[in-house]
Amino acid sequence: MRVIDNLELIKPISRSSPTKIVLLVIDGLGGLPHPQTGKTELETANTPNLDQLATKGICGLIDPVSPGITPGSSPAHLALFGYNPVSFNIGRGVLEAIGIDFSLEHGDVAARGNFCTVDETGLVTDRRAGRISTQKCTELCQLLDGLVIDEAKLFVSPVREHRFVVIFRGDDLASEVSDSDPQQVGVAPRVTAALSPEANRMASIANRFAAQAKMTLAEHYPANMVLLRGFSIRPYFPTMGEVYKLRPAAIASYPMYRGIAKLVGMEVLEAGTTIEDEFNALKQNYTNYDFFFLHIKETDTAGEDSDFDRKVRVIEQVDTALPELVSMEPDVMVVTGDHSTPALLGGHSWHPVPILLYSKWCRPDRISEFSESACVFGGLGRFPATQVMPLAMANALKLTKFGA
Amino acid sequence: MRVIDNLELIKPISRSSPTKIVLLVIDGLGGLPHPQTGKTELETANTPNLDQLATKGICGLIDPVSPGITPGSSPAHLALFGYNPVSFNIGRGVLEAIGIDFSLEHGDVAARGNFCTVDETGLVTDRRAGRISTQKCTELCQLLDGLVIDEAKLFVSPVREHRFVVIFRGDDLASEVSDSDPQQVGVAPRVTAALSPEANRMASIANRFAAQAKMTLAEHYPANMVLLRGFSIRPYFPTMGEVYKLRPAAIASYPMYRGIAKLVGMEVLEAGTTIEDEFNALKQNYTNYDFFFLHIKETDTAGEDSDFDRKVRVIEQVDTALPELVSMEPDVMVVTGDHSTPALLGGHSWHPVPILLYSKWCRPDRISEFSESACVFGGLGRFPATQVMPLAMANALKLTKFGA
Repeated sequence: MRVIDNLELIKPISRSSPTKIVLLVIDGLGGLPHPQTGKTELETANTPNLDQLATKGICGLIDPVSPGITPGSSPAHLALFGYNPVSFNIGRGVLEAIGIDFSLEHGDVAARGNFCTVDETGLVTDRRAGRISTQKCTELCQLLDGLVIDEAKLFVSPVREHRFVVIFRGDDLASEVSDSDPQQVGVAPRVTAALSPEANRMASIANRFAAQAKMTLAEHYPANMVLLRGFSIRPYFPTMGEVYKLRPAAIASYPMYRGIAKLVGMEVLEAGTTIEDEFNALKQNYTNYDFFFLHIKETDTAGEDSDFDRKVRVIEQVDTALPELVSMEPDVMVVTGDHSTPALLGGHSWHPVPILLYSKWCRPDRISEFSESACVFGGLGRFPATQVMPLAMANALKLTKFGA
Repeated sequence: MRVIDNLELIKPISRSSPTKIVLLVIDGLGGLPHPQTGKTELETANTPNLDQLATKGICGLIDPVSPGITPGSSPAHLALFGYNPVSFNIGRGVLEAIGIDFSLEHGDVAARGNFCTVDETGLVTDRRAGRISTQKCTELCQLLDGLVIDEAKLFVSPVREHRFVVIFRGDDLASEVSDSDPQQVGVAPRVTAALSPEANRMASIANRFAAQAKMTLAEHYPANMVLLRGFSIRPYFPTMGEVYKLRPAAIASYPMYRGIAKLVGMEVLEAGTTIEDEFNALKQNYTNYDFFFLHIKETDTAGEDSDFDRKVRVIEQVDTALPELVSMEPDVMVVTGDHSTPALLGGHSWHPVPILLYSKWCRPDRISEFSESACVFGGLGRFPATQVMPLAMANALKLTKFGA
């Protein structure tokens, strides 16, 4: 039996139309009940506007990947955009490059780097070089940036603390090479090996880069060596324009989310830095696109920081901004998260995420409160996040009939 | 990883037994709330018998294909019969032949035809020949019917207005040929091309047919040419007898549904024309089969006509006839629709469809009303329509254990 991917199913039946869809992603929205109150962050927050939209719309719960799976930000967002997050995989190097908003060109190979410490015999003693400061990392990257090895140009850019990213740009580079990072201390960095015949040159360039870095960094203890992993090239994604025949735009203040949006062919708009800025950007650009991905980061950050109350406050801020969105009267509004980030866990989790969808054509349910516990009884039921886009498209009357 | 199809899973564990299953399909059953009352067609209808069955049974919602996808009648029914509607695809030509109850033989190639208008230089000016009457179409088909080209016999049968179907019967015909219909005006009809070496003869016959039709129709402006598309052969479907070890019968007054039932190996019974006729046909044939597909068309027609009240009345008619079915005491009764056809949308839609299942062995839920909003809370939850047959089979104790 041939398995048909979601996108293959949708592409032939999607059609362009003047209707507009807004997908509001409150990052890490789902939570867990506070031990004292028995209420999650979303249930604790005062959210009259979300509750009103829930009353008019239809609610449910989504699984970003599948029950029990805690997703990273990139698979979680790919799923929301309708791309199977298991088959559409983004390599680590590319993800880091995207995360710092580096403009990857076709054929670029990206790798994630660590500054590390090696002893006088060359064995790794600290894979993170004592977590040097981001400023120190930036200085060291400048020493390595711009190298040309075997006609390939290297871009070395800081990420945060000991983390950096290196991009190899040149003809005929292949990414099938092994990591130099041994993922343990007490051993030497590995020699990067070609895993396919086409990758011989890439492996040789990577090894020459490591040798050069060792010389350059010799006097910079504890950051006296580099470890590389996750060599990858920017994968091919059919664009949202191709699949859905949308003109999609992204409003996100964090580079990582802008990068993922770019990968799937969205135009990335100037978003500012605050929630208010983002809603303003939506308003300014509202007439020019028919799909908006609006990303709120601060809920996730608060969850990661185990700050229950701050997460509650951010949700309330979003609720306060919501009437502005509602007043633009998009044909379809979807409010959800990419995954759960319960403050109690201090990190991403596997719990399903509340979703609410409003359109003139949704079949409203009996839910009048946007919360984890109410969404259990929602008319959308519990379903995979990859189905969010087909549902939004259907409600915008942007899908024709499948089969006759 | 090998993907196991539903049918592959069921076939080895199905067993024949004296128990009986009735699948009552109320076409286009699901709806949307009326703006004045907030109630759907099904919720507006007075349905004491359906509600009683819901009380004794178990309810839920089904997705014909997947969330957001609006299915045509043929994929929607295939799903209900347990056939994955995405992998089991029926070509346009075959579907048209089925729709007029044409008995396709093994190896027949069917194509959908349009009578069209071409100007004196041969360019298409109207793909539908001004939508000639069905009577005119019938007359023109008679001029072309029965041709023999290169030893293949042609059957040309009217469908409706400008639409007809042509069946090519002969040895070694293949369907992999391109359409002659250019799908636009201002260009000439396309030459049909073989898309595989085996299809050379079919392409040549199709082109000779088009040339012959052009001569024959020369004086019949505006219907002075034909356009063909969707060349296809009757696909192979494992029969319901093979998969489920059932002796299945179909009671449906519309040809299209009889055709799909035939494709999956059902015996098609004389159904009459009214709902009462259909229930009578069930009664007459009740002892001879162990599975009945009983199809009610009028709900869908009313929905397509945007006639909310008529759809309500048809549902009430079905409810009135229901005690007759219940009195036969089938071991399993399933009542559902193939898809939703909300009167408010005037066409098929993506909304999930209420389903109720009654058997001695179902695990009853708390639902006492057969409606979209109640079914959200049903014990069956929300699930793909392809799982309806396994559920019905299980409740009829017709499935043995999977694995040891």
